[in-house]
Amino acid sequence: MELQLIEYFRQRIPRYPCVRLGIGDDAAIIDLDLPQCVITTDVLMDGIDFRLTEVAPEAAGRKALAVNLSDLAAMAASPKACVVGLVLPEKGGMDLAKRLYDGLLSIARDFQIAVAGGDTNSWDGPLVISITAIGSPSPGGGLSRAGALPGDRIIVTGDFGGSILGKHLAFTPRVWEAIYLYRTYEVHAGIDVSDSLALDLWRITQESRCGAVVHADRVPVSEASHRLATQSKSRMKPLDHALYDGEDFELILAVPPAEAERMLRDQPLSVPLTDIGEFLPERGLWLEKGKKRTALEPKGYQHKFF
Amino acid sequence: MELQLIEYFRQRIPRYPCVRLGIGDDAAIIDLDLPQCVITTDVLMDGIDFRLTEVAPEAAGRKALAVNLSDLAAMAASPKACVVGLVLPEKGGMDLAKRLYDGLLSIARDFQIAVAGGDTNSWDGPLVISITAIGSPSPGGGLSRAGALPGDRIIVTGDFGGSILGKHLAFTPRVWEAIYLYRTYEVHAGIDVSDSLALDLWRITQESRCGAVVHADRVPVSEASHRLATQSKSRMKPLDHALYDGEDFELILAVPPAEAERMLRDQPLSVPLTDIGEFLPERGLWLEKGKKRTALEPKGYQHKFF
Repeated sequence: MELQLIEYFRQRIPRYPCVRLGIGDDAAIIDLDLPQCVITTDVLMDGIDFRLTEVAPEAAGRKALAVNLSDLAAMAASPKACVVGLVLPEKGGMDLAKRLYDGLLSIARDFQIAVAGGDTNSWDGPLVISITAIGSPSPGGGLSRAGALPGDRIIVTGDFGGSILGKHLAFTPRVWEAIYLYRTYEVHAGIDVSDSLALDLWRITQESRCGAVVHADRVPVSEASHRLATQSKSRMKPLDHALYDGEDFELILAVPPAEAERMLRDQPLSVPLTDIGEFLPERGLWLEKGKKRTALEPKGYQHKFF
Repeated sequence: MELQLIEYFRQRIPRYPCVRLGIGDDAAIIDLDLPQCVITTDVLMDGIDFRLTEVAPEAAGRKALAVNLSDLAAMAASPKACVVGLVLPEKGGMDLAKRLYDGLLSIARDFQIAVAGGDTNSWDGPLVISITAIGSPSPGGGLSRAGALPGDRIIVTGDFGGSILGKHLAFTPRVWEAIYLYRTYEVHAGIDVSDSLALDLWRITQESRCGAVVHADRVPVSEASHRLATQSKSRMKPLDHALYDGEDFELILAVPPAEAERMLRDQPLSVPLTDIGEFLPERGLWLEKGKKRTALEPKGYQHKFF
């Protein structure tokens, strides 16, 4: 069955000029722009990152690639190719795999990333999708979490919170936005928000050895955050959802003040750019409401094991 | 706990000059020899590829990287870097991860491959390890499954069968052997034996659009095949184990006759090279015993799903 499925994929997966050798060998050979590559990997599991009882397999396949594309966006890297590791449940695995690939290939086309190979397995457990994506760095090296300087503005794309109501499956990885901003403006550091606005901002401050303050009234709180706050029994406020929910897959950028001003005046993207605060010389993460600063806890989604 | 574990790995994982940006960012940046990379991925699951009730986590971690190195060997590619996706059982996951990494880092050191990043997850299911390795192709492009010509000899490294008795965990990926042979001799095609000698030889014939005949009395049957044949209730003969067991992680190469002769005379490796038959102009896979040819079934390990 494994051979049949590989043959099925092989006929359906479009060929890209950068794939010198693709599906059907022990490894793939990819032509890159430079003797350098950006590489990132994400593993998604049924029951954790989505529930196949609630979500179409196409959406799960799309998400599995989209989260990797979002990591490439965080580096301002151009997508080149990916490999797909599947662990399929034995029962229904063939149909599931085909539908996963339909979703995956659709977003692959949008972002011009080749599916260059993979590994297809089965067991009597739930679905696991593991994707590794490679890209070419932007000229100049691209973004990293390190490099934010005290005084830099905290610029974000889009809005935050309540992703569980739909965005976590349907989000657009900010690939082209990141490349455009990096090439057009001076940007010191960047990250994509997977675990939460607070936790991922904290990660920039950790790697950049600085602190940050977020102005509560400037955080772009999504409409979904408001909806979730009225629905949920947890009594979280909309702002809390925006700060701590995660899976927004928006960008946080560290931008020097004059460049930030230019960026906000230009608003060059189809998604809004917002200045939510600034990086500070001393370590520490703060939330400012009116004139009052309180500690902003770097909490968000984390896997638990002991 | 996830953050703690990432910090633990970060301190223990050696730095390699080719890793420009490593663990602790959204993606890694790898310096390559050429604007080209070889990429391969393998997913291993507890209960399928090993059983943690029987096998030390260090051995499982070693195997997860070794199977990827074997795929790079099949292409005669030089290992550069890998990324490691883990799905850990919640209970005992921290200790398990540390021990997996001990085994993984030990073989990574042997083959000078950098661990450049990963993704660490947890759930209430069994362990899954997904590794993607990248390498640099050999000058000239390296090996693929396509390219075997009728008349080429079938040359194999090492011996075959009974891998389940230990070799499947302790095997040496034939990375340096493949690079050396590819650079020193004319080699038309190659593959590593993961699923079985018969099935992986068949894969070369499929991609090379030819056939092959194996001489039964020339197949290097491992000592483990003999042991397994006496132990097992399946009444498989030692030769059957050698042909169909899989997980030998030896190389099958297609070598023109004069070069094969030179190779066998030189015996340049610490592992023996053996000529087990030849590639044929017509499709079909055959086993020759004395003067009699019978069909050699391309059977071996395949994942089942329906």
